[in-house]
Amino acid sequence: MEFTIIKKDTSTSARVGRLTTPHGTVDTPVFMPVGTVGSVKGVTPEEVRDSGAQVILGNTFHLYLRPGSKLIDKLGGLHRFTGWDGPILTDSGGYQVFSLAKLRKITGDGVIFQSPLDGSQHIFTPESVIEIQEMIGSDMIVCLDECIPYPSAYEYTKDSTDRTIQWAQKSKKVFSGADRGLFCVVQGGFYKDLREYCAKELLDIGFDGYAIGGLSVGETKQMMYTVVDQVTPLLPWDKPRYLMGVGLPEDLVEGIIRGIDMFDCVVPTRHGRRGYLFTETGHMIIKNSCYKDDGSPVEAGCDCYTCRRYSRAYLRHLFMSGEMLGLRLNTIHNLHYFGRLMREIRTAIEEGRMVQFREWFYNVRKEEGRCS
Amino acid sequence: MEFTIIKKDTSTSARVGRLTTPHGTVDTPVFMPVGTVGSVKGVTPEEVRDSGAQVILGNTFHLYLRPGSKLIDKLGGLHRFTGWDGPILTDSGGYQVFSLAKLRKITGDGVIFQSPLDGSQHIFTPESVIEIQEMIGSDMIVCLDECIPYPSAYEYTKDSTDRTIQWAQKSKKVFSGADRGLFCVVQGGFYKDLREYCAKELLDIGFDGYAIGGLSVGETKQMMYTVVDQVTPLLPWDKPRYLMGVGLPEDLVEGIIRGIDMFDCVVPTRHGRRGYLFTETGHMIIKNSCYKDDGSPVEAGCDCYTCRRYSRAYLRHLFMSGEMLGLRLNTIHNLHYFGRLMREIRTAIEEGRMVQFREWFYNVRKEEGRCS
Repeated sequence: MEFTIIKKDTSTSARVGRLTTPHGTVDTPVFMPVGTVGSVKGVTPEEVRDSGAQVILGNTFHLYLRPGSKLIDKLGGLHRFTGWDGPILTDSGGYQVFSLAKLRKITGDGVIFQSPLDGSQHIFTPESVIEIQEMIGSDMIVCLDECIPYPSAYEYTKDSTDRTIQWAQKSKKVFSGADRGLFCVVQGGFYKDLREYCAKELLDIGFDGYAIGGLSVGETKQMMYTVVDQVTPLLPWDKPRYLMGVGLPEDLVEGIIRGIDMFDCVVPTRHGRRGYLFTETGHMIIKNSCYKDDGSPVEAGCDCYTCRRYSRAYLRHLFMSGEMLGLRLNTIHNLHYFGRLMREIRTAIEEGRMVQFREWFYNVRKEEGRCS
Repeated sequence: MEFTIIKKDTSTSARVGRLTTPHGTVDTPVFMPVGTVGSVKGVTPEEVRDSGAQVILGNTFHLYLRPGSKLIDKLGGLHRFTGWDGPILTDSGGYQVFSLAKLRKITGDGVIFQSPLDGSQHIFTPESVIEIQEMIGSDMIVCLDECIPYPSAYEYTKDSTDRTIQWAQKSKKVFSGADRGLFCVVQGGFYKDLREYCAKELLDIGFDGYAIGGLSVGETKQMMYTVVDQVTPLLPWDKPRYLMGVGLPEDLVEGIIRGIDMFDCVVPTRHGRRGYLFTETGHMIIKNSCYKDDGSPVEAGCDCYTCRRYSRAYLRHLFMSGEMLGLRLNTIHNLHYFGRLMREIRTAIEEGRMVQFREWFYNVRKEEGRCS
């Protein structure tokens, strides 16, 4: 994997770059839709591509349990299996495993857990997690890390951070390289010194990309931005920085301004299925009765399939009737919104006007959940 | 609406024809996918069209209750509202109203019923049902009929058949015509003399098309075919005959051989959502474990999007994981199967070999639910 910075914004830390992976290039900053179990929920690879998304995220934990990494390998890898031929980043599974709480136990070698599907026992080690991701054919691989809840005590956070560092070291050793990229995860909870310590140790090992993990776990937005502010300046300038599991449009803007290059989140897809639609002027709760006889598209000027073909009234009707097509049409619009936002941001950075973009971004938004 | 018979099979009652409607022409015999509440579940109008479907069915009962016929009218009619620009046939709502059992009551003028959505009270009269269908912009309209259960006593069936005839008479009077077609429904239960009586009375009134209703209500297949055998020869040769709510591929073959031109059924879509896939050689239950690592498409040679792009193993994985995309891909394949079957049948009729086609159709099928 290669990363080239093409343009740096003049007055913020934002930058435009290009990632080169075995399955094509990616313009950064990039937002990665989440294809949890090998499909971005409800939409085809063509629809994902058409939204402007250039890379998708697959969940190692879910894919390992079902259908299983060996099966995916046997069927030609995740790209062939799912029909998505662009770059794929797989996460480490750490976030999911540590969310299991009572169903998992940390050992020196890794983490033992029970499958929520059938109760069977499994172990993830730093080595096995790299092997799984390589086996399914991921382009960008993430080291196993421990994702701790918020709040966590200092002592536990320190031990956990050490574990994440040791696991990263082990991961690097078994990573086969090829053209793939290996990302480590900066942890350290909400303790500045631990975040700095973790970043420094990981830098010493050296990775193709640096993820910031352990955020979006219940802390305030300001706390999240603070961690990003602390960590980003410590990371190598010429490597991609990936803010895991984030986020809402405003989080993308704020992250990018702080020097983040990559994001992933279920927000556009999950919110879409719940009838929450993103637009430039804020969001729209499609079930609101004001849309009942509204013949206009979700967003005037949006070139997505949903906006080109259907009215708010029809989307509301589909949602109220529990029609599957509605979930899909909402998802398509939201993915396009995120694709467009990232495109606009890249242009703003290229033109050295990211500060103005942020100002416009907030100004153009109306009240939350408006009914217009 | 116009109907032209283009070719009659040499040794059966099958015929190839063409229906001309305000929204385009339809080659018959035709299978109409069901778009219950204004969407063929899970798929777009483009995907429906691409499957070879030329006309879809909308449910008057459902659309009247939600979003409401006035709203659809306000938003430019059902075609514009749903994005399907081809011909639409709407049923009379009779089947749904009479399925409500305790929630409805027949009066001289029509039928009073309670909305299953909110308990509100409504009345369908022959006149109001025509008005609703005209208001939403249907191309082919069906008269209100009483759909009785099986078995029903002779006396009740006789009274009910008289009611259906009277309602058809009233419907004809208020039907505005234009380029639309008006279909009556031949009822009469499983009593030969009542079916004949009903057909004769309806013929005297005169309609653009003749539907056969009250079938697929729990009787045996042989009983259903017997009714079709009794009724079809009584119907005018130059008008389309429509077998309502039918059916499985074998029912289409048997119906067409007996002179039926039109069918509708939820089978391809509902079965698809349940993981039941139709193929030339029989059906496939996609969750069966034999498909776990099966890299081949559902049906070799099928040109549908699903078969061109995905393996049985992937479809099984999506189904087992409860992924929405799987329901959609299954539906796409099934609609294509039905589209292809109808195309092949039309060709067979044109070439005067419908008997041979039926023989081939049964011969090529393997055991039910095979795992190959």
